[in-house]
Amino acid sequence: MSLVRVHNFSVSLDGFGAGEGQQLDAPFGHAGMRLMQWATGTRTFREMGVPGDSEASLGVDDAFASTWRAGIGVEIMGRNKFGPQRGPWDDEEWKGWWGDDPVFRTPVVVLTHHPRPKLEMEGGTTFHFVDADPVSALEQARALAGDLDVRIGGGVAAVRQFLEADLIDHMHIVLVPIVLGRGERLWDGLEGLEERFDIEATPSPSGVVHLVFTRRTA
Amino acid sequence: MSLVRVHNFSVSLDGFGAGEGQQLDAPFGHAGMRLMQWATGTRTFREMGVPGDSEASLGVDDAFASTWRAGIGVEIMGRNKFGPQRGPWDDEEWKGWWGDDPVFRTPVVVLTHHPRPKLEMEGGTTFHFVDADPVSALEQARALAGDLDVRIGGGVAAVRQFLEADLIDHMHIVLVPIVLGRGERLWDGLEGLEERFDIEATPSPSGVVHLVFTRRTA
Repeated sequence: MSLVRVHNFSVSLDGFGAGEGQQLDAPFGHAGMRLMQWATGTRTFREMGVPGDSEASLGVDDAFASTWRAGIGVEIMGRNKFGPQRGPWDDEEWKGWWGDDPVFRTPVVVLTHHPRPKLEMEGGTTFHFVDADPVSALEQARALAGDLDVRIGGGVAAVRQFLEADLIDHMHIVLVPIVLGRGERLWDGLEGLEERFDIEATPSPSGVVHLVFTRRTA
Repeated sequence: MSLVRVHNFSVSLDGFGAGEGQQLDAPFGHAGMRLMQWATGTRTFREMGVPGDSEASLGVDDAFASTWRAGIGVEIMGRNKFGPQRGPWDDEEWKGWWGDDPVFRTPVVVLTHHPRPKLEMEGGTTFHFVDADPVSALEQARALAGDLDVRIGGGVAAVRQFLEADLIDHMHIVLVPIVLGRGERLWDGLEGLEERFDIEATPSPSGVVHLVFTRRTA
């Protein structure tokens, strides 16, 4: 069976995966780019068009970042990752943050209570808008992925829901040593999560710690 | 000026330094020994009388654990670390968790709203019961420490108060990869803490990550 994977998902020391006040010009709210600073130095994120002010690095941050694509046949993302709108779609002109040629290059299932027609982009990305619980969303995603793996792309609520439903096999969390104080908590409702995973920690000279969660086999 | 230091202070992935329901037979509440498991393998904690079921280790966990004593002239601890009682002292027979010959071997300032006479123990430990805010408690502790450093020994509320008051110079936090779900949060009210510290991360084969916070010089 194909795996369900999370990659490059940053959380603060106090467990927030996004700050307060997420909006169009601040996708991470008051956290700004602090949660993703480590990634802007990597070749992987530069190739995705993320700007950075230093030479792109091939160090440990890039080694982890680069694993996000291989073997992935579909992404599932929450509505909050797709865009800043909430509620019914006032404007179907919004096509995500990623321009005409999004980085995904696979089908992408967008979880929303307000379905709309699928959206075919350049380069192989098609957004499918689906109103479904995690189990049935995963079923629909697997049908689009063939034998390949499924990535849960975020945001915080989406990752937490799939963890609650015990559907995640592999999870790469980037612990960023900052205290955000407010925002969306990743770990809420997940008491005892560690019993289901082996967890490996690798620090980076950039200051973050890469945590890899691998589901324990029964 | 002598330093104010925190050592061997464990927190969970979700930021709890103790679980819910702390009491006489469960000093960490529902967390049990999970937050301190890493320490029970070290020679330093064995020498303090903490039982363990394996050969004592001199690896990275012990290297960090062992730094708690050198150069320390006094400890400040919260009432909750001293004992499970709350409110007025019904029973002054309680002399802490540590037996007749406590591990500290220095003066120990116990923060409490209910002062009682000082308590001289064997081996150099004397408990002083003091009703004071962090600044004035630190002043009293420094008077007892001579030129030596001050350790903030916990519990969670004590460490958080000294961080809020910006009185900590060095802090060794042990990030334990568990999700406790409930208990006492260390990081609450400390938004932006990272701006005051350089932070270094070292993983251990035991699974924990040692975080060392060093106050930035102005």
